Amino acid sequence: MNKPAPQKRGRGRPPKQVGARQDTRRALIRCGTEILTEKGFHVTGIDEVLKRVGVPKGSFYHYFASKEDFGLAVIDNYASYFAAKLDRWLEDEAVAPLQRMRNFVEDAKHGIERHHYRRGCLIGNLGQELGALSDTFRGPLEAVFLDWQRRVATCFRAAQSAGEIGASADPDHLAAFFWIGWEGAILRAKLVQGTEPLDLFADAFFAGLPRE
Amino acid sequence: MNKPAPQKRGRGRPPKQVGARQDTRRALIRCGTEILTEKGFHVTGIDEVLKRVGVPKGSFYHYFASKEDFGLAVIDNYASYFAAKLDRWLEDEAVAPLQRMRNFVEDAKHGIERHHYRRGCLIGNLGQELGALSDTFRGPLEAVFLDWQRRVATCFRAAQSAGEIGASADPDHLAAFFWIGWEGAILRAKLVQGTEPLDLFADAFFAGLPRE
Repeated sequence: MNKPAPQKRGRGRPPKQVGARQDTRRALIRCGTEILTEKGFHVTGIDEVLKRVGVPKGSFYHYFASKEDFGLAVIDNYASYFAAKLDRWLEDEAVAPLQRMRNFVEDAKHGIERHHYRRGCLIGNLGQELGALSDTFRGPLEAVFLDWQRRVATCFRAAQSAGEIGASADPDHLAAFFWIGWEGAILRAKLVQGTEPLDLFADAFFAGLPRE
Repeated sequence: MNKPAPQKRGRGRPPKQVGARQDTRRALIRCGTEILTEKGFHVTGIDEVLKRVGVPKGSFYHYFASKEDFGLAVIDNYASYFAAKLDRWLEDEAVAPLQRMRNFVEDAKHGIERHHYRRGCLIGNLGQELGALSDTFRGPLEAVFLDWQRRVATCFRAAQSAGEIGASADPDHLAAFFWIGWEGAILRAKLVQGTEPLDLFADAFFAGLPRE
């Protein structure tokens, strides 16, 4: 999407200026990920991000072509971070496949609690805010959901091979069902400022999995 | 919440001024319901609502104590409208209970399609936007979800009596599960600008209902 182009390096360190530019860009993206997750795209001012990172006002366009370009880079950053987190749980072969999903759910509960129910999921939040409004964001946001779905579907296929889910199940459908509902559960957890909706959704989801 | 107080009437029409004030207030709430559902609370300017209804700028405080007060009246209006819509489907005794739910789902699909996936659900939208931010809105929004859940739970209890859902099921839990996931499905439908997520969620939900 909007990843910095890989730098061609010689044997030494890259020129200081280029390295510093990339460091600052990364710092802006990291900070933007936090603020956008919490406050959304429209309400967040670029100035607030620049100020927090300590970058002079007016130099934003040195790093990004536009606020939208910045938003896309933030989505990309969150997607990579979250995919790595998912893999950490879902590829844990020491654990039975469905338990891996349950472990992910437990971890997510701790995460949302730790941030005092202020953040939730950047992709769900921006999907809600921009889904109906922006052609620019719609495709990239949906692509992230599809990527997460694929990872969960792989885990469900393993669960099927292990006999934890019945042969009649379609792992891709189940994974899509999971993400649709899970985003609803995160929305509700933010509203009630508690993890009950996450538990309720996860328990009902696992209880409804086909056994045959 | 913020309903206009019932007017004490004699036999004739109420004094013209009072009636006119209530009419204008209702028109502002109706218009606000549309705009807030589409654009959210923070982005919507009061001036835009006044202009659409043809009310002079600056007379807003004649009708509402604050923008928040207006927001609460809009939530109240949407909640009543939607509860009546739910009842129309869920109390249709000519139809088996689970089919009533399916009929509601079909109707919702047509509704979201008709508005070109721009609106979705006011309560879900504001929950996402304000759930983490506003103590004022959190309680009223959650109260609406709980009201809808109760109506759906009543329908599931009827389905249980009719043998469509197994005796092991907890209708209240199922209704909570439904609304958590359904809001996620509406979010996703707005993102993909299509009804597939609504179908996928509903099919998986009905398929997972306990039969025993």
